[in-house]
Amino acid sequence: MTTAQPVILVDGEPSACIPADDRGFLYGDGVFRTLRIVAGKPRWWPEQIAKLSEDASRIGLTAPDPAVWCADLERFSAQLTDGVLKLILTRGSGPRGYLPSAAQPVRRLMVFDATPNSGQRTADLRVRICTLRLGWQPRLAGIKHLNRLENVLARSEWSAADIHEGLMLDHAERVICGVMSNLFIWQRNRLLTPRLDQCGVAGVARGRLLRLASEQGLDVEETDLNMQAVFDADEVMLTNSVMGLRRVARLESKNWPDPLISSRLVEWLDA
Amino acid sequence: MTTAQPVILVDGEPSACIPADDRGFLYGDGVFRTLRIVAGKPRWWPEQIAKLSEDASRIGLTAPDPAVWCADLERFSAQLTDGVLKLILTRGSGPRGYLPSAAQPVRRLMVFDATPNSGQRTADLRVRICTLRLGWQPRLAGIKHLNRLENVLARSEWSAADIHEGLMLDHAERVICGVMSNLFIWQRNRLLTPRLDQCGVAGVARGRLLRLASEQGLDVEETDLNMQAVFDADEVMLTNSVMGLRRVARLESKNWPDPLISSRLVEWLDA
Repeated sequence: MTTAQPVILVDGEPSACIPADDRGFLYGDGVFRTLRIVAGKPRWWPEQIAKLSEDASRIGLTAPDPAVWCADLERFSAQLTDGVLKLILTRGSGPRGYLPSAAQPVRRLMVFDATPNSGQRTADLRVRICTLRLGWQPRLAGIKHLNRLENVLARSEWSAADIHEGLMLDHAERVICGVMSNLFIWQRNRLLTPRLDQCGVAGVARGRLLRLASEQGLDVEETDLNMQAVFDADEVMLTNSVMGLRRVARLESKNWPDPLISSRLVEWLDA
Repeated sequence: MTTAQPVILVDGEPSACIPADDRGFLYGDGVFRTLRIVAGKPRWWPEQIAKLSEDASRIGLTAPDPAVWCADLERFSAQLTDGVLKLILTRGSGPRGYLPSAAQPVRRLMVFDATPNSGQRTADLRVRICTLRLGWQPRLAGIKHLNRLENVLARSEWSAADIHEGLMLDHAERVICGVMSNLFIWQRNRLLTPRLDQCGVAGVARGRLLRLASEQGLDVEETDLNMQAVFDADEVMLTNSVMGLRRVARLESKNWPDPLISSRLVEWLDA
């Protein structure tokens, strides 16, 4: 497709809008996934659908059968080339108030956007440290839910186009993630990534990489990391489902000129 | 009006839906107010508009001039009788991603719902204690923003119709608020309410009551309260803009059979 306008299905039907009483809108009462379409195919599709269903169930939502998402995707197929696909699942419309009605059906959205990303898919990242500290909420930790004001406020801290991402810490000064990515460090031949039991989003790229690196025999651990550990790392990397894995070339004033493990990890992840 | 269907204005025009790329929907990137319409008049209107603007500015949104909200209200006026009015302000539609565009206009909604409330406006409350613990986020504390998943999960903890509200604690076991209300206790001739510097919503009814009680010469304090302090209180009360102030008759298995200060506070608040 040649237009940059996103294409939207709401419950399988073309639509540019959602009801104003949708609980996703009123309360952020829903979950989502953002993933890449490469040559018409959604990347890591089974994991994305599984993670969406798992996140939904954590907040008491029953996700549609995977076949329903596949049918939506079929309706798009003539238009899909390369771009970004977003899946959103909300608790739908119901009576006023926080209490969910057991009877109300969920609402699902599929949004395809062919707009190119920032374009620097192969470029190394320049990263800063955010001032905002993530709050702890174990009931929501790891879930990609629609309550993303912390990410919005953190992303608002910088506008310079040559800074690609910001690292987020929690109020115990543990490094948790990037605003839109997960963090990995390579340190003395170990691959480390922050534990996400109190906050942060456990992305599909992160999950894949943890599994693949472990299968390949790397020493892998989810652990607590402070900023000093990140600065001292031999290599620093960020992952998400849209960009895959990219190495950090510069964090504040610290530089890592050469790749070490990252090119191998990219190969495993994209295989 | 006789229908129970809510009446909705989006940016001043009748509409039942919002664009699917609204950042209020995608990220909960917005703020809101819920207030009562009594005999066609919105209660505590200047405070509601002031609080909405203040909350908006806390997340970097510029609220419309109060005259804009008044003009929306005028369009409703023939239909307003008694009911609940909701004002929502979002960061509007913009490019994909968390970074807000400085150029994008905000979006405002006004929703009037004539559906009667649970109906027991004068009844005393039965209250439980929620299991979910509120997370700390000083950057968002006090704001009525659209990230309300904690409230949804807490409200999902009970469905018994004779339990009206649930108390919410933070992870330091401080009592913060009800799921949809603010808490006051009357203890040895002092009126106490939780500090909301880490979490919770600082409601308009709470703000009014703090001011009025202080003007009337009561000893008033925002402080840290644990559950024992609430159980030991001479009287326990909850406030919000829809129900005003109501006393708690029963909290878990503890009863407070008789009103002490609450009837006077209701008079001040509703004057």
